[in-house]
Amino acid sequence: MISDTILRKLEAELDAGGVDTSDAALDERRHDYWVLKHLRNWRGEKIERPGVVVRPKNTAQVQAIVRVAAEGGIPLVPFGLGSGVCGGIEPDESCILVDLSTMNRVREIDETNLVASFDAGCNGLEAEEAVAERGLTIGHWPQSIAVSSVGGWVSTRAAGQFSTGYGNIEDMVYAIEVVLPNGELVTLGKAPRAAAGPDLRHLVMGAEGTMGIVSGVTLSLRRQAEKRAFTAFHTPTLAAGFEAQRQIVQNEWLPPVMRQYDVRESQRNFQPFHADDQGLLLMMHEGPASRVDAELEAVEGLASKAGLARGSDEAGPHWMERRNHVPTWTDLLEQNLIVDTIEVSAPWTRIEGVYDDVCESVLALDPIRLVSAHSSHVYRTGLNLYFTFVALHEDSAEMEGTYREVWRRTLEATAKNGGGIAHHHGVGRLRKNELHHDLGENGLALLRTLKGAIDPQGLMNPGNLIPDA
Amino acid sequence: MISDTILRKLEAELDAGGVDTSDAALDERRHDYWVLKHLRNWRGEKIERPGVVVRPKNTAQVQAIVRVAAEGGIPLVPFGLGSGVCGGIEPDESCILVDLSTMNRVREIDETNLVASFDAGCNGLEAEEAVAERGLTIGHWPQSIAVSSVGGWVSTRAAGQFSTGYGNIEDMVYAIEVVLPNGELVTLGKAPRAAAGPDLRHLVMGAEGTMGIVSGVTLSLRRQAEKRAFTAFHTPTLAAGFEAQRQIVQNEWLPPVMRQYDVRESQRNFQPFHADDQGLLLMMHEGPASRVDAELEAVEGLASKAGLARGSDEAGPHWMERRNHVPTWTDLLEQNLIVDTIEVSAPWTRIEGVYDDVCESVLALDPIRLVSAHSSHVYRTGLNLYFTFVALHEDSAEMEGTYREVWRRTLEATAKNGGGIAHHHGVGRLRKNELHHDLGENGLALLRTLKGAIDPQGLMNPGNLIPDA
Repeated sequence: MISDTILRKLEAELDAGGVDTSDAALDERRHDYWVLKHLRNWRGEKIERPGVVVRPKNTAQVQAIVRVAAEGGIPLVPFGLGSGVCGGIEPDESCILVDLSTMNRVREIDETNLVASFDAGCNGLEAEEAVAERGLTIGHWPQSIAVSSVGGWVSTRAAGQFSTGYGNIEDMVYAIEVVLPNGELVTLGKAPRAAAGPDLRHLVMGAEGTMGIVSGVTLSLRRQAEKRAFTAFHTPTLAAGFEAQRQIVQNEWLPPVMRQYDVRESQRNFQPFHADDQGLLLMMHEGPASRVDAELEAVEGLASKAGLARGSDEAGPHWMERRNHVPTWTDLLEQNLIVDTIEVSAPWTRIEGVYDDVCESVLALDPIRLVSAHSSHVYRTGLNLYFTFVALHEDSAEMEGTYREVWRRTLEATAKNGGGIAHHHGVGRLRKNELHHDLGENGLALLRTLKGAIDPQGLMNPGNLIPDA
Repeated sequence: MISDTILRKLEAELDAGGVDTSDAALDERRHDYWVLKHLRNWRGEKIERPGVVVRPKNTAQVQAIVRVAAEGGIPLVPFGLGSGVCGGIEPDESCILVDLSTMNRVREIDETNLVASFDAGCNGLEAEEAVAERGLTIGHWPQSIAVSSVGGWVSTRAAGQFSTGYGNIEDMVYAIEVVLPNGELVTLGKAPRAAAGPDLRHLVMGAEGTMGIVSGVTLSLRRQAEKRAFTAFHTPTLAAGFEAQRQIVQNEWLPPVMRQYDVRESQRNFQPFHADDQGLLLMMHEGPASRVDAELEAVEGLASKAGLARGSDEAGPHWMERRNHVPTWTDLLEQNLIVDTIEVSAPWTRIEGVYDDVCESVLALDPIRLVSAHSSHVYRTGLNLYFTFVALHEDSAEMEGTYREVWRRTLEATAKNGGGIAHHHGVGRLRKNELHHDLGENGLALLRTLKGAIDPQGLMNPGNLIPDA
């Protein structure tokens, strides 16, 4: 419970309505998009609520909230637009939930220097549309773009669908404004590039609210491309598809979108364009027209050399139109299905091992009806896999156990094959006990040391990301 | 003085010859390439020597050294190949100098995943040549490549001459192996890309030895390009040149090399190719032949539109051949000249202000004979400037004062114009009292908090990088 004294202190700092203890507000902010919470909710189980929801309107108010919390020793849970899927927030009545959705301005767009600044709670699609009006693009297109915030992108180290050409959020962040646990404001990132000590922006990116509250973000922009084109190829085997992908990026071609679907996903998502027993490699090419033309010719040759037959150019636009449509968790639960996606990554030589071992170990679970995967983020050194699993349980009480076991098996099979256990959804509570695979025990100890130094009271999003020693 | 007890402990951990207190060794490792130390040396002034030089042969020996130092409360100064120019090391007799030049193996080259691992002390050119034998390249070409180490690149956040297309060292680092101040080893970076908490590689990159000792580095590689071509253009004004540079990169063309020289540097360095009263914009284009051809055509059009006339294609090869040749400091001192370079960066809209204000404020100093600049690292959001200054003093005792004043004026004029005070040489002792311009006082406080947590005894390269509170 948050005391009346604290509530009054918060009220003194915020605008009218900025401190909300109504049932509607507390209910609405109990959880984000993590399926386990939706499952519990659907089953009528209790989900803890925050003690209070506060809605800052500007950075000074975020600082004031953090100071009140620091003085009172009260945990803070930052909340962007609630699209997280890994249990990054888990408020209870001891917490102040800092709802950043009311801090949503586009601060500035600089067309000459190609940077734009946003409040942390600015909706991603609104941010993109604001720069698009000037002929520019952020180039960051997560599937969640319409329901995620710019600050959330930074806090979770997000990746977008155009990442193969345009990079991930860390390649776009110019500066981050963050309120530290002591209430001090720091703006990290000043120059186009610097060798001015460690790049402290990276302490905040991916910290998922554990190191402070991101209040503003400046992103670098791009001009909208002169030409866009799509290609698609049928992949006789995953291995052939991986080989084509590798040859394309290692030959320095960078289609913003490059996605290989396994046979199951090709059949499920690309029915009009699917070829029997084949997967699908889909690309979107974008840039100056002459470079796109050169890329199209090169990609055709490299794909052919890897044994891929050309598919329909319409597969790309088909995907573009439908790419952000997802069924609601409840629709699936009503069908006795629990479904989730798990994104991991690995070097080229290990990625087939990850795919095979994950599929085998997960399919061995009786309630599993389907495991499939596609790759959607490609690097010179390797690529990601994005698994989807579907489990069927007549008794929904059994769903959580299966769900956790699928996650555990997937991450452990990935780690066993030398892969990284988290490509872009972050860690939250779902991956934190597997984080040692990526960081090692000494890396975890280092992370705890940093956390203890920056947040000695342990008030910033406690319980998230960092496993106990 | 390092006690005999400590020396014996170190000897027990290292190979024969690994603990060296000879005059030759101590003299050789008194300083790096910072001109101020060369000046003092040339003037016959005393330069402090380390208490002992230790030469680990492998990572376990680095850990052993760090543990001995930690137990004894003895400062450690890491030393790569000594190409630093900002005062990043300043050993005295209380210190153990950890000479990494004997830890110089190429550990592994993986041609499929395009990564290679090196001991931290591996010579940069030897690293590049090792991968070149396989048709690959690191793509990192600092002027110091033949005299700098792979670990040094990471510790200083280095940039190479091909950075406009291939990125800076942070874009190439796949993993960093670092011995923490408590002697524990941590390997940061496992996957092609991760959202597994804060990216801790960035705590080490640019830390200049203050957070631990980098013992190994894994870099991502590229295939050698199919085609290389050069272009050169005369720039009637710096502004016209900047406009051409901006249009080229903001239109998504990425020549690895893009350098604009002001009139003074064009005249000085490109005599056969210089046009009266004009600067020079020089580019190297590299990649798949068809993409290079498209880039050449586009660049010609964009440069022409910005008012630039085509220069000789031979200017590029002329630069390539001579690019890493620098006179020795002593040659210049013998002519009563003290010379240095200062690299800063700024957004496009502020870069002319930086150039003008730096030139004006530095030229106002009586002993200054020349200030000139070129830009050599270009980004969508802005670019760097690389100033050269020459001061003449009959009495060499006056050189240091002028030198420090030039640095102060340059960094302050840069900061006043919204620029970043350190593009890629790092901070050392030369910039640390100006670091507040980039980080702000709160950013400095954060950096001190991190340092205090990771290195509570303050033994790692003390006095470097982080200004006192």
